[in-house]
Amino acid sequence: MTEPACPACAGQWPSSEYRIVDCGLTVAYLHDDQFFPGWTYLVLKRHATELWQLTRDERAALIEEVARVGRAVGAAFEAVKLNYELLGNQIAHIHWHLVPRRADDPAPRAPVWTVEHEPRRLPAAQLAERIALIRSHLAGA
Amino acid sequence: MTEPACPACAGQWPSSEYRIVDCGLTVAYLHDDQFFPGWTYLVLKRHATELWQLTRDERAALIEEVARVGRAVGAAFEAVKLNYELLGNQIAHIHWHLVPRRADDPAPRAPVWTVEHEPRRLPAAQLAERIALIRSHLAGA
Repeated sequence: MTEPACPACAGQWPSSEYRIVDCGLTVAYLHDDQFFPGWTYLVLKRHATELWQLTRDERAALIEEVARVGRAVGAAFEAVKLNYELLGNQIAHIHWHLVPRRADDPAPRAPVWTVEHEPRRLPAAQLAERIALIRSHLAGA
Repeated sequence: MTEPACPACAGQWPSSEYRIVDCGLTVAYLHDDQFFPGWTYLVLKRHATELWQLTRDERAALIEEVARVGRAVGAAFEAVKLNYELLGNQIAHIHWHLVPRRADDPAPRAPVWTVEHEPRRLPAAQLAERIALIRSHLAGA
């Protein structure tokens, strides 16, 4: 199922340069703002906006992908805590933010959204390195 | 498994006056700040901080509880979108925020955490009414 008006279904978002791996039900992408190192999201391949629109089997598979990729990015970026967020306020297509919170986090007790900062776009080499690091942790999982 | 230093395991949080229902693996509570009407969270009964610390069966059951309660609070409060967030930045014990975003939301494209507001504590009668409303939607689910 796709939804023509949806940027995820139309292939307009996320940009393929941030693609990490196909996880099964979802595709993992590195967030273009890497102020929080390792911020990754999982984008559902088919269109749905709420968890209850999925089948029970899809939900079970989805939470396995969230846990598996979460563990990998947590390990890759030495997180002391991971944040898992499914919002959809701007793009309602199901996508799950996985944000490693590290020991050097500027505001460890606060949600990332309240931490004002300049977005950090990585140069291509560093982007590739970060994606490769996550892939290596996924391969070892 | 319990963790003595954890306020959730020690029974210090959440306050029982906000208790909605025992869902199985989790207990649902109404958030004490009801500025976003219907904000609910699910608190895992046992101690764990990350999804990958749970068994596969626990994760599957957990996401069912998240979807079921999310659907009920979404319907009860006429949400146009639901936000699902597992953070643990302040209390690392797994708990899942379920936040209905309504048509009259003051900032529908923004995460709730960035919406400055005075916390809205409900008088007892209104709190009881809101809890009863969610229970009735869960009973019909």
